[in-house]
Amino acid sequence: MSSSRGTLFRITTFGESHGGAVGVVVDGCPPRFPITASLIQEALDRRRPGQSRLTTQRRETDTVEILSGVEDGLTLGTPIMMVVRNEDARPNDYGNMQEAYRPSHAEFTYEQKYGIRAKSGGGRSSARETVGRVAAGALAEAILREKFGIEIVAWVDRVGTVESVVDPETVTREEVDATDVRCPDPGAAAKMIEAIESIRREGDSLGGTIRAVARNVPVGWGEPIFDKLEATLAKAMMSLPATKSFEVGSGLAGTLMRGSEHNDIFVADDAGRITTETNHSGGIQGGISNGMPILLRVGFKPTATISQEQATVTPSGESTTLAAKGRHDPCVLPRAVPIVEAEIASCLLDCCLIQQSRNLT
Amino acid sequence: MSSSRGTLFRITTFGESHGGAVGVVVDGCPPRFPITASLIQEALDRRRPGQSRLTTQRRETDTVEILSGVEDGLTLGTPIMMVVRNEDARPNDYGNMQEAYRPSHAEFTYEQKYGIRAKSGGGRSSARETVGRVAAGALAEAILREKFGIEIVAWVDRVGTVESVVDPETVTREEVDATDVRCPDPGAAAKMIEAIESIRREGDSLGGTIRAVARNVPVGWGEPIFDKLEATLAKAMMSLPATKSFEVGSGLAGTLMRGSEHNDIFVADDAGRITTETNHSGGIQGGISNGMPILLRVGFKPTATISQEQATVTPSGESTTLAAKGRHDPCVLPRAVPIVEAEIASCLLDCCLIQQSRNLT
Amino acid sequence: MSSSRGTLFRITTFGESHGGAVGVVVDGCPPRFPITASLIQEALDRRRPGQSRLTTQRRETDTVEILSGVEDGLTLGTPIMMVVRNEDARPNDYGNMQEAYRPSHAEFTYEQKYGIRAKSGGGRSSARETVGRVAAGALAEAILREKFGIEIVAWVDRVGTVESVVDPETVTREEVDATDVRCPDPGAAAKMIEAIESIRREGDSLGGTIRAVARNVPVGWGEPIFDKLEATLAKAMMSLPATKSFEVGSGLAGTLMRGSEHNDIFVADDAGRITTETNHSGGIQGGISNGMPILLRVGFKPTATISQEQATVTPSGESTTLAAKGRHDPCVLPRAVPIVEAEIASCLLDCCLIQQSRNLT
Amino acid sequence: MSSSRGTLFRITTFGESHGGAVGVVVDGCPPRFPITASLIQEALDRRRPGQSRLTTQRRETDTVEILSGVEDGLTLGTPIMMVVRNEDARPNDYGNMQEAYRPSHAEFTYEQKYGIRAKSGGGRSSARETVGRVAAGALAEAILREKFGIEIVAWVDRVGTVESVVDPETVTREEVDATDVRCPDPGAAAKMIEAIESIRREGDSLGGTIRAVARNVPVGWGEPIFDKLEATLAKAMMSLPATKSFEVGSGLAGTLMRGSEHNDIFVADDAGRITTETNHSGGIQGGISNGMPILLRVGFKPTATISQEQATVTPSGESTTLAAKGRHDPCVLPRAVPIVEAEIASCLLDCCLIQQSRNLT
Repeated sequence: MSSSRGTLFRITTFGESHGGAVGVVVDGCPPRFPITASLIQEALDRRRPGQSRLTTQRRETDTVEILSGVEDGLTLGTPIMMVVRNEDARPNDYGNMQEAYRPSHAEFTYEQKYGIRAKSGGGRSSARETVGRVAAGALAEAILREKFGIEIVAWVDRVGTVESVVDPETVTREEVDATDVRCPDPGAAAKMIEAIESIRREGDSLGGTIRAVARNVPVGWGEPIFDKLEATLAKAMMSLPATKSFEVGSGLAGTLMRGSEHNDIFVADDAGRITTETNHSGGIQGGISNGMPILLRVGFKPTATISQEQATVTPSGESTTLAAKGRHDPCVLPRAVPIVEAEIASCLLDCCLIQQSRNLT
Repeated sequence: MSSSRGTLFRITTFGESHGGAVGVVVDGCPPRFPITASLIQEALDRRRPGQSRLTTQRRETDTVEILSGVEDGLTLGTPIMMVVRNEDARPNDYGNMQEAYRPSHAEFTYEQKYGIRAKSGGGRSSARETVGRVAAGALAEAILREKFGIEIVAWVDRVGTVESVVDPETVTREEVDATDVRCPDPGAAAKMIEAIESIRREGDSLGGTIRAVARNVPVGWGEPIFDKLEATLAKAMMSLPATKSFEVGSGLAGTLMRGSEHNDIFVADDAGRITTETNHSGGIQGGISNGMPILLRVGFKPTATISQEQATVTPSGESTTLAAKGRHDPCVLPRAVPIVEAEIASCLLDCCLIQQSRNLT
Repeated sequence: MSSSRGTLFRITTFGESHGGAVGVVVDGCPPRFPITASLIQEALDRRRPGQSRLTTQRRETDTVEILSGVEDGLTLGTPIMMVVRNEDARPNDYGNMQEAYRPSHAEFTYEQKYGIRAKSGGGRSSARETVGRVAAGALAEAILREKFGIEIVAWVDRVGTVESVVDPETVTREEVDATDVRCPDPGAAAKMIEAIESIRREGDSLGGTIRAVARNVPVGWGEPIFDKLEATLAKAMMSLPATKSFEVGSGLAGTLMRGSEHNDIFVADDAGRITTETNHSGGIQGGISNGMPILLRVGFKPTATISQEQATVTPSGESTTLAAKGRHDPCVLPRAVPIVEAEIASCLLDCCLIQQSRNLT
Repeated sequence: MSSSRGTLFRITTFGESHGGAVGVVVDGCPPRFPITASLIQEALDRRRPGQSRLTTQRRETDTVEILSGVEDGLTLGTPIMMVVRNEDARPNDYGNMQEAYRPSHAEFTYEQKYGIRAKSGGGRSSARETVGRVAAGALAEAILREKFGIEIVAWVDRVGTVESVVDPETVTREEVDATDVRCPDPGAAAKMIEAIESIRREGDSLGGTIRAVARNVPVGWGEPIFDKLEATLAKAMMSLPATKSFEVGSGLAGTLMRGSEHNDIFVADDAGRITTETNHSGGIQGGISNGMPILLRVGFKPTATISQEQATVTPSGESTTLAAKGRHDPCVLPRAVPIVEAEIASCLLDCCLIQQSRNLT
């Protein structure tokens, strides 16, 4: 019962990586918004496998069908079901892996938890599950952009030890998508691509960090105490496959500062609008958006499935070795960028709707 | 509607820092467990203000009353309401702060969100809200310890730039509580205390990190996709006041490693029990506990309220300055230790109960 | 985990009938509404035991304290905790009943479900639990009245076989409260009082029905499919102690009609406002309010606890007899009237807030 | 956000009556249960339109596809998505109805609530939405039957004024399905069929009541206070299209009895198992199952859509008349029988799983 998220904008994903289909039901989408399959498709294409030489070679067109909740291109306010059939499912690729647990993979825990697991690929633990999240997020983002002018941009901040420098105030999605690695710092991007190609040749994998910004978020979104905006975003990010860390605003670096340095001084512009001089808070104070850009950073571990041979055990506990044969990304970060953006959008729209309910008129 | 958390072990906190009382209703607590007010009190005493020279001098005995759900020292399975009256509320301490927004504090966003805010202190944004969380967590922890032998220990890992070295496999709560700063590395503890006293004298504040471990958690807890165990823990931690970062297992450092280094190799002991050689996963794979110690790290910013004078604005946007007069911790970390432990306990018990429901018999 | 209800206006009740206190936490109450303890107290006084010769003689002043969420008489938008101490708890009244299960009472099922139960009185199954519901409903009703002019009136429709005739379009709460039995048809009221007094003398009890109307509810409240307005109201009513039936609009009688008779013909007034000629729908179509008065009827069984001797068994299964000694209402309906009203108010405000969230501006 | 229901066994339906598809995602289904498409299909076939001369002549094969959550015929514990494509959608049948509101239909309220509505048929308000509920219920029922021997049987109790007499202790589904009208009292069934055929010829419609029983439900299911078993069932039933009333156990008739008659006397059998002599409680006390058969009755109004001409208004408020052209059931009760059973099953399994979580071992 954990494939749903959200209070008013509520998404429920379904589907195994090598089953019949993956997808999502979005319940609570505001009515009368223009939505087309091509808008959703465009988002899915950015997440799709096989889009560049840096990603898995699994061939999926990921063609989305919208089967409910939209009529004549407008949302009805009813559940929107979006489904993508799995085409290039290859159960047999995983032959030897059914006999042995992939290190740092979810097969062992799924089997222990449920007493059964999908035989091929990662089942629900596969990043393929995020197809539904991206479809839902595309919807949310379109609404946030139209109604509030909100811009959500994520980018690859670091791959292995290759770091980039990017200005969150101005970075655009076009700049991000200019390179296959989705890093808008061209010099760093080139080095990241080199690092990924090199690690792939070694049959190994790399991790790194993604940064994201949401600009033009109105003041007042996010619910204090257990559903603080940063807590909601943290949960969303840490619910993505392979994530290891979450930071908001100044993040871990901010914990090294003194209060007098870290505090964001309030200032008022000529129109009396109150903002802050710095943005160590990352656009959130007390769990509530303060009108400044929302800033976060997410860490991803190196892909667990690698083609190098590794020691492991069989379900009965016998020692063995395993070299993965499936088609896997040597670094998940480039494809994780649109997923991070989608999740931010879904979370923000939910917070928006909740806050909206307070305007009793 | 965000003062509740949990699916089956559900806690609802209430109370402003300078209102009548703070507390919690715990719904879904398993029946027939021995619970006494003194068990709860002991936990609250570790969180209480004024317990050492390192913390705020607000004087609160934080005496808990259990007003429902427990009879003759046993839980009834019904809601347990626990309340602590506020004694040392001092509305007037905040006189000048009502006129000007404290930098990096939640007053501005609360006022924008609700169109009103508690006049004195932080209201719900105050760490005083965590009294209810600690009371609920004490309940959860007692049950987890009795039924599963689970041990939850958190400690101050770093204050400012002072780092410690602690073994999560063996560290005990007694070692943690041996110093006022709650760092079980005695050498580091001494330096941390010095750093905090020094910063207090400067009217400034420090941040840092807390680490925590949960040992003996059974395999299979945590719900895949949106309620992964690490996602649930991340949300809990990022919902605490002043938190800036969350890491699980190898955390941010793990994102710098290669897959072949980072993967936790499965091994079986003589009894056929499957564990891992390393624990970069931090006891969680695919959102589900794998039986290894659960490891996490949480970053806290330096306290926002400082007695140094800072620039800010009034609600009407006029520039002014502010030097806080209230009683505040120059470093929140020592008192955050029992809060982190409590939150881990509440989250784990909820996951436990959900997993329990799968054992259809 | 079932002591909470509502999505945005969320109430959590706590407390056993003979424990320390009963009460409620209301989370999600709209901010900036004027609320005083006396407003809540007035509602509780209508529910209070001992208010007339028709009700239980338990002596409770039911004095409410508001311990959070309200400051200077205004709601803060944060959780409002309201508590009533139990004063006239008399554990010993129930001496013999601890040894034998009261027929048609919840003692047996609580004990089986939880493996433990409150030793005295009904614990959570007692109607005393509704103190929290009434306090929450008083809040909700005040807001609905101020913002929308909504009027909620419930009345005793039938006691045993004594029926009344009342016009739901015009009935007022003053008319309802004019008699102890809370039936606004004076002739019927006199017969009902007689019937109740007579049955009390026999050591027996009576049931009956309550009708309720909510006038001036705007069009558009209630969420289709699983949270239809009538479904939400039905759940609330059937969650009250002693309820056996729920009807909306034409109710059971309507199921005997033909479609051509039962259908509510739409008409437009001069201003173009669309209403219906009849109101068999009870103000709800497709789960959504249509602007007509919301009409419902709730059936209550005769009080289970009676002073006549009845056969029963002990927990170990031995036959015995039982004659209740506690203080019980021979007919729960008069005191159930304010409870029904409160529940309608809480449900409507929750629906209101959800619908409000759709007005994206 | 109201197309989902359940805490641990959670169902989310989607689809408009004349859109692309209808279906359901079931999250939280226990793992390792044998499930085949034919099991689901069998249930859908009982709900399908066009199955007899008593029902709408819409032609739908209602062929279900299971696209996730099941592998090799076993549930994986992950979300089960089941979808039925709409085949015989006929948007044009509704031409004139787009211009005028059908009396007692949900078109007006949907349009007011969402500012938009599905142009053809009832959209989400159509009984076609219940395809998803029936599919989910078939799953739940199979599990309840296998693990607990639970038998759920519903039947048509009354059509218009034609009443039946049926023994809930012994009635079987085979007896129910023996006639097209699904009334297991053969004499009454014949009269009901005659009444329905006659009313169809008049272009009018009939309502009536359905009774249901759930046998072999263990003691202890259902959550006190807001999620009482009867409250949960009431909400489910009142969330079905066309329902007007809900009764549990003795129902409305029970409210006419005295306590001494109505109380169910506890007795113990030779094995010490405690049951009750009568079952006015309908198998539920204090919101918790007591081991006796669960008994309920649900009232359905006469179908709103009739082919007789009726007065109504257009969206702009002009008077007009309307004679429905679509294909509609003159009496919904026969097809509602499997829907009622399905909803009971889904609710019971959810209660079962919650209670299961209490067995901390």
